[in-house]
Amino acid sequence: MTFEVGQSAQVTKRFDQQAVGQFAELSEDFNPVHLDEEYAKNTQFGGTIVHGMLVSSLISGLLGYKMPGQGTIYLGQNLSFKRPVYVGDQVTAIVTIAHIRDDKPIATVKTQVVDQHGKVCVDGEAVVLLPK
Amino acid sequence: MTFEVGQSAQVTKRFDQQAVGQFAELSEDFNPVHLDEEYAKNTQFGGTIVHGMLVSSLISGLLGYKMPGQGTIYLGQNLSFKRPVYVGDQVTAIVTIAHIRDDKPIATVKTQVVDQHGKVCVDGEAVVLLPK
Repeated sequence: MTFEVGQSAQVTKRFDQQAVGQFAELSEDFNPVHLDEEYAKNTQFGGTIVHGMLVSSLISGLLGYKMPGQGTIYLGQNLSFKRPVYVGDQVTAIVTIAHIRDDKPIATVKTQVVDQHGKVCVDGEAVVLLPK
Repeated sequence: MTFEVGQSAQVTKRFDQQAVGQFAELSEDFNPVHLDEEYAKNTQFGGTIVHGMLVSSLISGLLGYKMPGQGTIYLGQNLSFKRPVYVGDQVTAIVTIAHIRDDKPIATVKTQVVDQHGKVCVDGEAVVLLPK
């Protein structure tokens, strides 16, 4: 397969309270800011928010399943959690190849998740070994 | 609450094929290396592996729910995927406060996930705003 700088993929998804509950079980992160609307109302967020790592999992999904896709080896990921994603928000994850090394099939990929207002919620960069 | 450098928490967990399947749905990462034993056998891994982001979710769980715990705000996370975690492996995630800023209640936390052989599978660092 051939890959080039600028190549991109995206996915849009809404995480509902059930999805957040499932992720709480998987991650053992039962922080009530994700699960308890009454509790979350009285925090600075004002409502239940999706786990940042669940939001970011869409990036992993794009890299491993869409672009570069099957055979990609995930080497690293930097994540900066810029804004909360509220339960029920519609988010779009976007991955774009930013750089490919000359000596090895290793790419740096710009990775972002934006909400329905176009605001960046998760910003970062992945490093992947490209599939053959 | 008071926090200090060296403070630590850990959790041990085994991700079975069902958990990996659930995470595939949540993340929309249906890469067969995570789901299809026959396919995975013929990859360099030789068997199904847990999504790196699912393994790393244990770090998020520790930070948000155990140490520093409720009220922590997750600002950022660097992840380096060093070795695969196989479905059924027993992994231990460990978070340790490495630095606390003098001017703000912001901590850098060393974050690692090791497998049952003591090998580091995920290495990295989180930045969090400590709870009041």
